[in-house]
Amino acid sequence: MQKWQAIDGHLATPQGFRAAATAAGIKKAAGALDLAMVASESARTSAAGMFTTNLVVAAPVEVSRRHLEESHGRCRALVVNSGNANACTGHPGLRTAEETARATAKALSIEPRDVLVASTGVIGVPLKSELILKAIPGLARSLSAEDASPVARAIMTTDTFPKCCVLRSELKGHAIHLAGIAKGAGMIHPRMATMLCFITTDAAIGPRTLEQILRSAVEGSFNCLTVDGDTSTNDTVLALASGLSSAAVVPGDESRAWFQAGLDELCQTLARMIARDGEGAKKLVTVEVTGARTPSDADRIARAIANSPLVKTAIAGSDPNWGRILCAAGYSGAKFDPYKVDVYINALALCRKGLDAGFDEAAAKKELGQKELILRVELHEGPANARIWTCDFTRDYIDINASYRT
Amino acid sequence: MQKWQAIDGHLATPQGFRAAATAAGIKKAAGALDLAMVASESARTSAAGMFTTNLVVAAPVEVSRRHLEESHGRCRALVVNSGNANACTGHPGLRTAEETARATAKALSIEPRDVLVASTGVIGVPLKSELILKAIPGLARSLSAEDASPVARAIMTTDTFPKCCVLRSELKGHAIHLAGIAKGAGMIHPRMATMLCFITTDAAIGPRTLEQILRSAVEGSFNCLTVDGDTSTNDTVLALASGLSSAAVVPGDESRAWFQAGLDELCQTLARMIARDGEGAKKLVTVEVTGARTPSDADRIARAIANSPLVKTAIAGSDPNWGRILCAAGYSGAKFDPYKVDVYINALALCRKGLDAGFDEAAAKKELGQKELILRVELHEGPANARIWTCDFTRDYIDINASYRT
Repeated sequence: MQKWQAIDGHLATPQGFRAAATAAGIKKAAGALDLAMVASESARTSAAGMFTTNLVVAAPVEVSRRHLEESHGRCRALVVNSGNANACTGHPGLRTAEETARATAKALSIEPRDVLVASTGVIGVPLKSELILKAIPGLARSLSAEDASPVARAIMTTDTFPKCCVLRSELKGHAIHLAGIAKGAGMIHPRMATMLCFITTDAAIGPRTLEQILRSAVEGSFNCLTVDGDTSTNDTVLALASGLSSAAVVPGDESRAWFQAGLDELCQTLARMIARDGEGAKKLVTVEVTGARTPSDADRIARAIANSPLVKTAIAGSDPNWGRILCAAGYSGAKFDPYKVDVYINALALCRKGLDAGFDEAAAKKELGQKELILRVELHEGPANARIWTCDFTRDYIDINASYRT
Repeated sequence: MQKWQAIDGHLATPQGFRAAATAAGIKKAAGALDLAMVASESARTSAAGMFTTNLVVAAPVEVSRRHLEESHGRCRALVVNSGNANACTGHPGLRTAEETARATAKALSIEPRDVLVASTGVIGVPLKSELILKAIPGLARSLSAEDASPVARAIMTTDTFPKCCVLRSELKGHAIHLAGIAKGAGMIHPRMATMLCFITTDAAIGPRTLEQILRSAVEGSFNCLTVDGDTSTNDTVLALASGLSSAAVVPGDESRAWFQAGLDELCQTLARMIARDGEGAKKLVTVEVTGARTPSDADRIARAIANSPLVKTAIAGSDPNWGRILCAAGYSGAKFDPYKVDVYINALALCRKGLDAGFDEAAAKKELGQKELILRVELHEGPANARIWTCDFTRDYIDINASYRT
């Protein structure tokens, strides 16, 4: 099978998709893009979604879940706004999400159940439906396959850069594209929090297979992210497959693994972009745990380290405080012998067999000064590994979050 | 029974105790107090201890646990240093802790197993035993019952003020005293992290009863604290009872509940001082969850809120972002109906039945501007309550922890 290769592009690069973004006045800043639409011209477009596991869910999550069920995994359009999460907004919020889908369906001459909605931004503040409803007809008219890059900007909140990844490969002689955009920044934790991700592809793939492949890709990417340990009310990952390429992804055939590899790469690339852009983050940190007794032990340790404010502030300050790393492993609940553990920053050993490795302080500072670094803990207990992406914890995180709402 | 009353005093206020502190050169700052000793003149002094549950434990914790076992809950002296945690220091670290106990035993003509040791400070850096061994004879000679307040200062690391509480009451006509000191600041979490607490009393009480009462007091005080979600290698709470008051605390008698009430009050007072002095903290926050289905649900929600960096940064910025509070409750794992929940800051309702309560923004800012505030979540689900103490999350936390080691 041909490999997947990164190419320049946007959400409308896969065949059959058009997109548009506008400034609807939801964000306070005048002229800021805050509403986007993505539509597929194929009536057979497959859709799959993964949503927050928080008990408190935003109105658009409720509506999108229901529409995916009612349409049996079909979808023709997405509408997403930033600047307001439409969460903790009660019945009026639910009505706004439903009206958004209805207005979009009307503008595109499709069914409301074929429209999925998503929101991101402040929680608990009513979302003014009139702002969205007024903008939808114009947004529908301006849908274009030319350049969907404004869509990636329209879903940003505290993100500092738009996140987009486009891959291309070939299946049975036909070009296939995978495109994804994401927003992240704060509130990103084990189960995909405060992140939105929208994926388009022209592969022909049934909704059930698409959902299985998406679930697995999310497990190894967005579910391996942690920025501040909070999980949100709005997390949504949606994938749409127009099927307009002539080649089909078939379960039980090598095309499935090939498509999984592409979606894995797409999601992991976007997940790393989210970690690199964690609120106030200056460094992308990959926490690797190797040699654990069980996968669950490896995962627990990696998450405990990646979530530790003490580890993350030490990385912000380029302080090789490996004791905090060992300490976090110690309270993770995993079983290991502290006197077997080695700790590395990139290739430099800070700790061997639970003790100071006698490293050079200047060399350690240099490794910790990199913009991307790998913090590895080798347990020498067994065969299991885990990998979690996170970022450093800086004063800017505090500044951003101390007055987010006001 | 007579009530417990707060009085001025120190660790040597209870009869039979003497104490001393010195600058042994472990801390970098010249002349900073960093080594303290507390001794009891009674050979029948009972002792009880509670220690970290981290898998990675400091050498002094290992030694103190063993000595408490070997002495069957008896103790004559404590030695504690700050400036170095003697954790992740291997066999040399263990030897240093043992030598500290032996040197103290020699200076006081007691057995090494009757000495308990504790350390706090940086992890993974060898603790120079010669600094401690050289200081011990002088420290033993300077033991005094006059003023033990320097001891509370000698155990400080990033604490900004010494933490001491002394209570007095009467049992069967005899005065009884309870005195406690603590150090806290960063790394304080569910299970008593990076905190040390030393308690003295002149009550006559057996080691087993003392341990039961101490365990219960710790459960409702230090285990209800969270500053940054990290748990440490060195947590230790030790209680010594000289028995020199003529009145005995007897299990199965009302004196037990009376003593429990005193120890509860002492530990809760110290726990609140620790939260108020969280690294970089400007505000003491009491998170109260009421009306939960079960105690475990109430506890989970209270801890999720108290640990949320997003909630804590919003409090730092006096931003009434109640959506984050509800969101944290939602991912706690507890079961509740979001549309029944009320959220209060002090007496001001921010959210009713899961929706914005229409509060006055200026009034909310004012409540959030207090130095002590209560954040209450009423679930309307059942009879269970929980209470957790924490603090706000400020830029100073980052500054303190970005370069702690260096």
